[in-house]
Amino acid sequence: MISFESDYNNGCLPEILKNLLQSNDERTSGYGSDCHTEAAKALIRKATGLPDAEVFLLVGGTQTNATMIDALLGSGEGVICVPTAHIEVHEAGAVEAFGHKVITIGGTSSKLDAGGLRSYMESFLSDDSHSHMVQPGLVYISMPTELGDVYRRSELEELYDCCRGYGLKLYIDGARLGYGLCSPECDFDLPFLASHCHAFYIGGTKVGAMMGEAVVFSGMKAPRGFFTNIKRHGALLAKGRMLGIQFETLFADGLYLEISSRAIRLAMKLKDCFRRRGIPLATDSPTNQQFVILSEAQQRCLSKDFAFEIWEKRPDGALMCRFVTSWATSESEIDALDAALERLG
Amino acid sequence: MISFESDYNNGCLPEILKNLLQSNDERTSGYGSDCHTEAAKALIRKATGLPDAEVFLLVGGTQTNATMIDALLGSGEGVICVPTAHIEVHEAGAVEAFGHKVITIGGTSSKLDAGGLRSYMESFLSDDSHSHMVQPGLVYISMPTELGDVYRRSELEELYDCCRGYGLKLYIDGARLGYGLCSPECDFDLPFLASHCHAFYIGGTKVGAMMGEAVVFSGMKAPRGFFTNIKRHGALLAKGRMLGIQFETLFADGLYLEISSRAIRLAMKLKDCFRRRGIPLATDSPTNQQFVILSEAQQRCLSKDFAFEIWEKRPDGALMCRFVTSWATSESEIDALDAALERLG
Amino acid sequence: MISFESDYNNGCLPEILKNLLQSNDERTSGYGSDCHTEAAKALIRKATGLPDAEVFLLVGGTQTNATMIDALLGSGEGVICVPTAHIEVHEAGAVEAFGHKVITIGGTSSKLDAGGLRSYMESFLSDDSHSHMVQPGLVYISMPTELGDVYRRSELEELYDCCRGYGLKLYIDGARLGYGLCSPECDFDLPFLASHCHAFYIGGTKVGAMMGEAVVFSGMKAPRGFFTNIKRHGALLAKGRMLGIQFETLFADGLYLEISSRAIRLAMKLKDCFRRRGIPLATDSPTNQQFVILSEAQQRCLSKDFAFEIWEKRPDGALMCRFVTSWATSESEIDALDAALERLG
Amino acid sequence: MISFESDYNNGCLPEILKNLLQSNDERTSGYGSDCHTEAAKALIRKATGLPDAEVFLLVGGTQTNATMIDALLGSGEGVICVPTAHIEVHEAGAVEAFGHKVITIGGTSSKLDAGGLRSYMESFLSDDSHSHMVQPGLVYISMPTELGDVYRRSELEELYDCCRGYGLKLYIDGARLGYGLCSPECDFDLPFLASHCHAFYIGGTKVGAMMGEAVVFSGMKAPRGFFTNIKRHGALLAKGRMLGIQFETLFADGLYLEISSRAIRLAMKLKDCFRRRGIPLATDSPTNQQFVILSEAQQRCLSKDFAFEIWEKRPDGALMCRFVTSWATSESEIDALDAALERLG
Repeated sequence: MISFESDYNNGCLPEILKNLLQSNDERTSGYGSDCHTEAAKALIRKATGLPDAEVFLLVGGTQTNATMIDALLGSGEGVICVPTAHIEVHEAGAVEAFGHKVITIGGTSSKLDAGGLRSYMESFLSDDSHSHMVQPGLVYISMPTELGDVYRRSELEELYDCCRGYGLKLYIDGARLGYGLCSPECDFDLPFLASHCHAFYIGGTKVGAMMGEAVVFSGMKAPRGFFTNIKRHGALLAKGRMLGIQFETLFADGLYLEISSRAIRLAMKLKDCFRRRGIPLATDSPTNQQFVILSEAQQRCLSKDFAFEIWEKRPDGALMCRFVTSWATSESEIDALDAALERLG
Repeated sequence: MISFESDYNNGCLPEILKNLLQSNDERTSGYGSDCHTEAAKALIRKATGLPDAEVFLLVGGTQTNATMIDALLGSGEGVICVPTAHIEVHEAGAVEAFGHKVITIGGTSSKLDAGGLRSYMESFLSDDSHSHMVQPGLVYISMPTELGDVYRRSELEELYDCCRGYGLKLYIDGARLGYGLCSPECDFDLPFLASHCHAFYIGGTKVGAMMGEAVVFSGMKAPRGFFTNIKRHGALLAKGRMLGIQFETLFADGLYLEISSRAIRLAMKLKDCFRRRGIPLATDSPTNQQFVILSEAQQRCLSKDFAFEIWEKRPDGALMCRFVTSWATSESEIDALDAALERLG
Repeated sequence: MISFESDYNNGCLPEILKNLLQSNDERTSGYGSDCHTEAAKALIRKATGLPDAEVFLLVGGTQTNATMIDALLGSGEGVICVPTAHIEVHEAGAVEAFGHKVITIGGTSSKLDAGGLRSYMESFLSDDSHSHMVQPGLVYISMPTELGDVYRRSELEELYDCCRGYGLKLYIDGARLGYGLCSPECDFDLPFLASHCHAFYIGGTKVGAMMGEAVVFSGMKAPRGFFTNIKRHGALLAKGRMLGIQFETLFADGLYLEISSRAIRLAMKLKDCFRRRGIPLATDSPTNQQFVILSEAQQRCLSKDFAFEIWEKRPDGALMCRFVTSWATSESEIDALDAALERLG
Repeated sequence: MISFESDYNNGCLPEILKNLLQSNDERTSGYGSDCHTEAAKALIRKATGLPDAEVFLLVGGTQTNATMIDALLGSGEGVICVPTAHIEVHEAGAVEAFGHKVITIGGTSSKLDAGGLRSYMESFLSDDSHSHMVQPGLVYISMPTELGDVYRRSELEELYDCCRGYGLKLYIDGARLGYGLCSPECDFDLPFLASHCHAFYIGGTKVGAMMGEAVVFSGMKAPRGFFTNIKRHGALLAKGRMLGIQFETLFADGLYLEISSRAIRLAMKLKDCFRRRGIPLATDSPTNQQFVILSEAQQRCLSKDFAFEIWEKRPDGALMCRFVTSWATSESEIDALDAALERLG
């Protein structure tokens, strides 16, 4: 069974295991007060081009979003996002658990655009009853988006401007950030992203690590008491060095972007296989998640040898399916899929 | 200035003031442990046809919704409603404050129908990732709806059946319940409503009282510790008898429905005025809230002598405006509006 | 049955009923946008000597505490108080419901003193693990205290200084403020109190009103979005004028202090009755709550004609009982108690 | 520098790294749907003697406590514990973040005894105002306790009986469970503990793992929607197998108890060193945390070569210090400390 099920269906980079092994006999203080965590933070600051940015290492994505959104909002303020956003759909109410409403705007695109945001804010502010409504305080986007799309340089610039114009903060979920930055459609780099939002996180779990997400406060100071708030959210790892070592590995020698780049190359190859075999794409995704339309028979047949997710059952019976590559995907796995698609013919 | 601004723009029924005055020298225990509250509860049980129903008197609508939704849901479960629902739009995140997500389904109607609910639930349950999503536990509707519409007997029956089929509870916000039950389009009575939901509240604030909403657990027992939970929500009035006396007054001698009925008659007359003068209705509302479309000039002109709310600014510049009658509206106020509309010609 | 059970066992000041009656036919906007609420706020600003203070009218005490504490604290910060504080014992977890810990310090006194606070803060700050602990952000005291004691001018000065020294806010629960200010032991007035804390509330429910508590931001601006947060806490009354009229009545012509003063005079008389009859006082309370020690037999006998609360059952079987006077207590009720105590002899 | 600072100052068991390496190329589903997690659960069920117990693997201790306490309590109910409990002191308000009050009872002991619990509950239930107070729903204890003490078989039996008598649930924090079970003072085993509480967790982080805590519902079914609630708490690891592999390793071949036992032997040796050198013990701890009283001079001197925590500064200037052993402590580290103590003489 070859799996394109997700980008967390694998173990971790061998380099990470090697470094865990090498450091295993060290004795360090807990909760991120160790030299590996310090080194990781320094490398991340360097990669983002922000020598003074505050960096924190958390464990998982939902946890990171809930912690950050809670920290960036005032009491009872809400967070704006698109209807397909991970925080709206797949985080089991973790944002609401801390008393914040998720406010969805926009239509079918998985990207949130400055125009849509502006029109929402104008309508909100001109509504006579808006003091009875949840006050928006933050905009959440993800890069790449939930459906594999990427923002363009100009879009990000406009969005950040628009947010600041309305006194909103902008926060970017980078669970798959590497795959976004290495997409052929992406026309900016990490320092550009870092300087066009208030805060963001660099996903480790889906890009080579066992677990771990690195939060960066790039356009603001960390809120007072943020370390304590991490603890309060259950997001502070006792053996913090386990995260430190992983990000130290990922950000030494540009490994993070190198492995992301390889995954994207294979994703493009995978997309090409589907195209060549006449399987329609559901979206023309420029990142590591590819969405295609299979008939039930095709899905059943492919499922024998390949693991992948049914993303959506369409009213006409067709299935929108997701195939994901990652740093761990191999050339030969793509070839095997291609051969299977040929047989499917 | 004549006001059609809302149904809480007035004082309270003179009968209530009389009874407050009459009982003012009594000494009673607090928090609802008094004879007036007991009498009110007994009258409400009788009016709903449920001799064993547990009844609680709270102060305001948002508070009541937040308390009930929190009490009816398990930890982190969500509540389903339409996008125009009061809890979604105008309660400042009071439901989320207690950790519960508001899940909106349905399209443009202010009513939630069994078909839409069933299709949402089927799609939810067949989604492979639904254990990562907020689990729906409760359906919230209001009667009449936020836009003045009323449910029909068969709609309520189907909805309640559908809820129970999926293990969901059904809760009805009756902030304007009297005006709904007395609508010419309403084909059921209070006992029918009571026996077709798990719990609901009878609005006092908008129907004759100074404040006060009476919660009725009609299709279930009150959850363990509910009294304490009212206190925890800041919804327990120290001088509980002030609520008791008001509901005792409203439910003695059928006053609640009598005054509601009169308000509806005047609302129909008001609607007729607009119709006759050629002012388009935004919706054909069968209750005490009437929505009409005015030009900016018409709105400006009428505003000199009448208070009413601009509900929505339309892209074409037209204004959807709300005119509301209540138990306190007088025949002559409608006549004055009619004359003004004639002059507007 | 004569009741000394509480200071909310009564109706409301006849002057309030008169004004409610007089204004009943007016039409006003809701949620506190009415002339009576404006007038009440102006009178309260005048009485506190703070012409620019922001004033808000809420409904009940627990609700007011939960709303204020949530508004004055950052995400997850805690509030410091004594172990007998109302928020710790008798508010059903309303503070925790919004995610804030109640941190109790101090010993048996119902007053919190600057020395105790300083020693707590020093120990907290010197604890190496304090970043893993709830960060204190606010100090809560009540005036008078839960056991009827009053702060002295110098105590309040020191406490406010101490709070500011540590970056803590000071908030005063004035549920019974009138009775505290009129106590013979109180050596300051309302403007002094107002200028020695960040915020406080003036209790209406227990001092003449049907319900209502007036929040005053005296040492700071109201936090951004505070009005919306009131709504979110379910603490915004639709017919806000009902609160406006009550505080307008209480603060016109010094009525609030006048009725408080009378209640205190009667409380001192009541205390004197117990003393003369040889009933031991549990505390020498200078306010309207008197705590005495009765044997079970005495309690049983008095209970036939008088309502009062058993506050605490002592291990030796003796009962600490509470007798409360209010603006509604009459001279003759005290005389009747005195006669009964004589018979008890 | 030799570190006795904590039991999470180390890496992880070499066996765990070996198994992570060995399984690294496997492709598995996420969120605990993998064969290693299944195997780990089966081994834990076997070790607890409960073939049907539901087992879940979470990441960290604070997170596990917050998730479990939230899941075991009804809306707004509170959890009872001793004042030194981890949830009260060192979890940054994670329990309150989900709306639950921490209710502390008992005196100076770090153990909670049935007598104290009974007396609290009797006093609570006989308090006339208890419906205005947070309703206790759960008792939290830790084994071993925060100060290294262990419960006896009879104590646990009585406590569990007492809880069930009052309708309370009993939950045991086993962050250091291995060290407790292997203590010379412990007279029961894992199956006994499992059958004397409703739920507990087996700590991995402090006993050989990188991270990970295994929750066991031993005396009840897992609450409805518990998996979703884990996600909502940000406690669901995407690459769940990383936890599965660790617990699979710990519970194959009795490794968990074997390494715990060794740590306890070294802790007893360490205690003996202090005793022999005349350093007073703060408590006679039977587990892996040893608390001793050092003068400032002694502390300063030892700090040059050894890392350990100052637990408490005593008013007389003496320092209560904590020395911790773990599975990773070596015989020679104890010998080095002994030599240093001798020099200190």
